[in-house]
Amino acid sequence: MGLVVQKFGGTSVADTDKIKNVADAVIKEKNNGNDVIVVVSAMGHTTDNLLKLANEITKNASPREMDMLLSTGEQISMSLLAMAIQEKGHKAISLTGSQVGIKTENCHMCARIVDIETKKVEKLLSEGNIIIVAGFQGVCEDNEITTLGRGGSDTTAVALACAFNADRCDIYSDVEGVYTADPRVVKTARKLDVISYEEMLELARVGANVLHPRSVETAKLRNMPMRVRSSFKLDNLGTLIIGVDDMEMIKPVTGLACDTSQVRIVICDIEDRPGNAAKLFNLLASQNLSVDMIIQSYARHSQNTNDIAFTISKSDVDKFNAITDKINEILNASKIHMDEDIVKVSIVGAGMIDRPGIAAKMFDTLAKKHINIKMISTSEIKISCLVEKQYSDLAAQVLCEAFELDGAKVADVKGDLPS
Amino acid sequence: MGLVVQKFGGTSVADTDKIKNVADAVIKEKNNGNDVIVVVSAMGHTTDNLLKLANEITKNASPREMDMLLSTGEQISMSLLAMAIQEKGHKAISLTGSQVGIKTENCHMCARIVDIETKKVEKLLSEGNIIIVAGFQGVCEDNEITTLGRGGSDTTAVALACAFNADRCDIYSDVEGVYTADPRVVKTARKLDVISYEEMLELARVGANVLHPRSVETAKLRNMPMRVRSSFKLDNLGTLIIGVDDMEMIKPVTGLACDTSQVRIVICDIEDRPGNAAKLFNLLASQNLSVDMIIQSYARHSQNTNDIAFTISKSDVDKFNAITDKINEILNASKIHMDEDIVKVSIVGAGMIDRPGIAAKMFDTLAKKHINIKMISTSEIKISCLVEKQYSDLAAQVLCEAFELDGAKVADVKGDLPS
Repeated sequence: MGLVVQKFGGTSVADTDKIKNVADAVIKEKNNGNDVIVVVSAMGHTTDNLLKLANEITKNASPREMDMLLSTGEQISMSLLAMAIQEKGHKAISLTGSQVGIKTENCHMCARIVDIETKKVEKLLSEGNIIIVAGFQGVCEDNEITTLGRGGSDTTAVALACAFNADRCDIYSDVEGVYTADPRVVKTARKLDVISYEEMLELARVGANVLHPRSVETAKLRNMPMRVRSSFKLDNLGTLIIGVDDMEMIKPVTGLACDTSQVRIVICDIEDRPGNAAKLFNLLASQNLSVDMIIQSYARHSQNTNDIAFTISKSDVDKFNAITDKINEILNASKIHMDEDIVKVSIVGAGMIDRPGIAAKMFDTLAKKHINIKMISTSEIKISCLVEKQYSDLAAQVLCEAFELDGAKVADVKGDLPS
Repeated sequence: MGLVVQKFGGTSVADTDKIKNVADAVIKEKNNGNDVIVVVSAMGHTTDNLLKLANEITKNASPREMDMLLSTGEQISMSLLAMAIQEKGHKAISLTGSQVGIKTENCHMCARIVDIETKKVEKLLSEGNIIIVAGFQGVCEDNEITTLGRGGSDTTAVALACAFNADRCDIYSDVEGVYTADPRVVKTARKLDVISYEEMLELARVGANVLHPRSVETAKLRNMPMRVRSSFKLDNLGTLIIGVDDMEMIKPVTGLACDTSQVRIVICDIEDRPGNAAKLFNLLASQNLSVDMIIQSYARHSQNTNDIAFTISKSDVDKFNAITDKINEILNASKIHMDEDIVKVSIVGAGMIDRPGIAAKMFDTLAKKHINIKMISTSEIKISCLVEKQYSDLAAQVLCEAFELDGAKVADVKGDLPS
């Protein structure tokens, strides 16, 4: 008998009919002979509605009270799911993050899990209970309620799977798995049966919204197999995420993603002096501004100046505008240019490490369609190109064809559930 | 510097504007120089909406999961109120029943408070915080969340006031105080400035829905002054509830209430044998059926049988119907008769103890209007008559006139806040 952790997102528990449906998925796993720990998000728009209420009261809610408020969302869905499972004749018990003992840092709205107590849950499992745990929340010193921030419920699920040595962690949502590209853009995009943590992480970071990178990182660290699957199609096994070493066959390029959430900023004619870049990025970091791609041009020797270009999230544009005067003051730049009409197109694949020519093929494919590349950044298993937004779909399609990410051309890699 | 406990009901925190209004009421008390502990109910219809969700899933929700579900309502309102107070520049912190340490029995949906920890709240008060506590909830062994059942939030407030030796406990709602009779029925009904615990208890028990008797009982036990007042008229001091010994003047009849929530049941021709009544009421008790008025007729010697009549709550009629066969089996009764068109009219007053003739005057007043009395029950300070429902308003009016409960005739008893 094994142990499976299942996580159901907000759309999977959006109303009481869907919650009954989730109860079936849980009981199906229990009837497979496994112990089951279930992690739930808040129902549908609950969190948005709570945020709206807070927003009606203040634009500066204290993070502690926000955690108090938002943590109720998961408490509602977990108790309703426990009732639905009980109604179908199985033993179930719901537990808050605090009751489980999901210990976090002393930090609100973005706490990291530091430890999970196992005794209480193990006892309840041994008594035959299905355990329902509130996602997204924990408890820190002095019995204070904390929340984990973005990607919190997925992270709760993976962390619980690791703490209880689960056989795997199934993340249920309204998508059927991980695709080679966004199926809404590339009609021939294929669902992957298996993908490595590393590839999934890069895909998540470059804009594939299936999983938050945080949960994948946690799974990778402990080699915990994850499965992304649909709560509306229980017979579909979705996509298995495992270590690259455990994969039978590694393709050079596994997937493609487009990210339109960034803006490009160019700071022009900065004096070419050691320490100027450090000053700039320290200032950005002090404002909690995350920078993604960075390019510093070659210094123009005639003028002894250069340009620094980087991308930030659109949601951080206000924060950035608030410090442009300060940037000018520090760097004495001639101009700060901002470009919103851009898209970051990335290809990801664990196999590109030892196969040369992937980057060249990507640039060549885009060039043939006269798509100009504005910035490039690479990691070991990812190449990203910043291009004009109008070319987003075209770039996705031609790259999918070039790297055989569409359904018709290649047989899929098969992955099996670890027993 | 004193300490005041304030409790705000669901209508007082029904939306974010009302919550801001409550924040003003709290800050006003804080600015009076008092430490303040605030107890809140769930916003408006939140509890009803949660019950509806549970009901869509099962008709037999486990009490434990219901507590898990329902306790979120107060957690939402308390965090929003803390935000609203902070927004107005004051220090505030919200705490669940569990975080305060409101220890209850190991029982769900109707737990009684057994102990309240004071250390954490005292420390937070000493740091200048206004404390917001979730009403209606506590925690029992093994960190399980419990709720207190009906009247729970009022009880939380009074219990906290007692635990922290507060100067008084103010119960804010949408009514301006305790009235001599229901102002919707008797237009000339007067708001009382002061009433004794004993009178308030009897009024609450006979249908005045201002306060749940449970909270008044707790206050009486510790002689904690309570004030019933409106959250929409902060300058109105409402009605003070204190010990009868502390009252300056005691009137024979303080108030009147009508209760239409009961049905009368008559079990006819039961054999007049010792133990039959005990059998009947044991059976009712075993089904958790609360019985109010009870009358056993004189035995008809010719037949050696008698009738037993009693009243139960309308909400318990289904439970009662489920055991009528059992009753027939045990008692061999000739007939079970149920009458729903009844009203219990009660007059209450601490002064009736040592003034004879009050009951006679009540019966006489009703008789003059040809209102037939079906059952009578009395306590030291209360007389209740069961009459036909159609006479409800008429009985209330003539009794208010007879006992001078209307506004025009008597000067009101003055009560002052204990300093």
